[in-house]
Amino acid sequence: MIAQHTLEFETRGRGSYSITERLQDLVSRTGIASGLCHVFLQHTSASLMLCENADPDVRVDLETFMARLAPDGDPMLVHTAEGPDDMPAHIRTVLTHSDLTLPVGSGRCLLGTWQGVYLWEHRQSACRRRLTVTVSGE
Amino acid sequence: MIAQHTLEFETRGRGSYSITERLQDLVSRTGIASGLCHVFLQHTSASLMLCENADPDVRVDLETFMARLAPDGDPMLVHTAEGPDDMPAHIRTVLTHSDLTLPVGSGRCLLGTWQGVYLWEHRQSACRRRLTVTVSGE
Amino acid sequence: MIAQHTLEFETRGRGSYSITERLQDLVSRTGIASGLCHVFLQHTSASLMLCENADPDVRVDLETFMARLAPDGDPMLVHTAEGPDDMPAHIRTVLTHSDLTLPVGSGRCLLGTWQGVYLWEHRQSACRRRLTVTVSGE
Repeated sequence: MIAQHTLEFETRGRGSYSITERLQDLVSRTGIASGLCHVFLQHTSASLMLCENADPDVRVDLETFMARLAPDGDPMLVHTAEGPDDMPAHIRTVLTHSDLTLPVGSGRCLLGTWQGVYLWEHRQSACRRRLTVTVSGE
Repeated sequence: MIAQHTLEFETRGRGSYSITERLQDLVSRTGIASGLCHVFLQHTSASLMLCENADPDVRVDLETFMARLAPDGDPMLVHTAEGPDDMPAHIRTVLTHSDLTLPVGSGRCLLGTWQGVYLWEHRQSACRRRLTVTVSGE
Repeated sequence: MIAQHTLEFETRGRGSYSITERLQDLVSRTGIASGLCHVFLQHTSASLMLCENADPDVRVDLETFMARLAPDGDPMLVHTAEGPDDMPAHIRTVLTHSDLTLPVGSGRCLLGTWQGVYLWEHRQSACRRRLTVTVSGE
């Protein structure tokens, strides 16, 4: 059995946003007990992340790390027409994930205790982001 | 239903090559309307990338970024027997993706407007690269 | 058909550990000839890696690279309560993979000649790590 749904999110600019509960709700409503939940983000300047869900400082540090690794306005970059944060957003996306697959068991995504699923917005401005979620199994 | 195919590509050395059309063709020929398309690259010095498909400068900047992050001939590396670009190619592969899964709907991969799928060659020389594509669904 | 299993591993601290044979054994015991093998790590300070399996120096160089990119005790990090290697372990996990999907054909994972699957422990101390493996197909 396959169930496919589109989810939309409005981000408030750069930062990471938990989508764990919306995914768990969607999976439980499919009635699929055992299988896989595939999450796909249809954008190239935002990404998906599995991250520690307890201390928000972890996600603060990830932003700090990315700002050092791929800083906005980096003079070596030539794709600048869409602003100083656009090419760094593409770099951050390529270094992380546009798709994630999670195991489903007992009708839920089988995440570890400390794992949360996050939509990671890499643009400075608020954006509308679209996900396709495909749950397959029995 | 499952359909599994092997695709081969000849790269012309370091750089990224669109494989979007070959994947879309393959998916449409399976007759699977809804499900998933899994793409797997059987190599450790090339990778797969979902990237902005409009301005080629984006992929120029990604090469520039990787050349700063993991430069060829980096004196700290010890695995040098296969040339100065071999270990950097392994690093670039580990930081990106050997497998991608794309949602399939209406008989096509449901990519975003600006998303293209690229085979990213990290070796300086031309190489033959093999992909296994598995389409599953209904 | 879907077969889902949990595997546990005891790591001996930071480093990468081959899990290729345990995965191949598990896949062959499911009786699934053609499909996909999904591997999911339920932790945020260890990851999964497809890597060159011939020269151990490749994995030595990957550690050297990560130690330069995300050093333990980096003074810019604020999440330090769990030790100087904890936040770097989260960073390394986000830059690599918590899930991998491998094609299955003829009852085996269809890896390339030089591809091995590794559990990559990013904490300095020994840890118990749990994987969920989901094999689907026909």
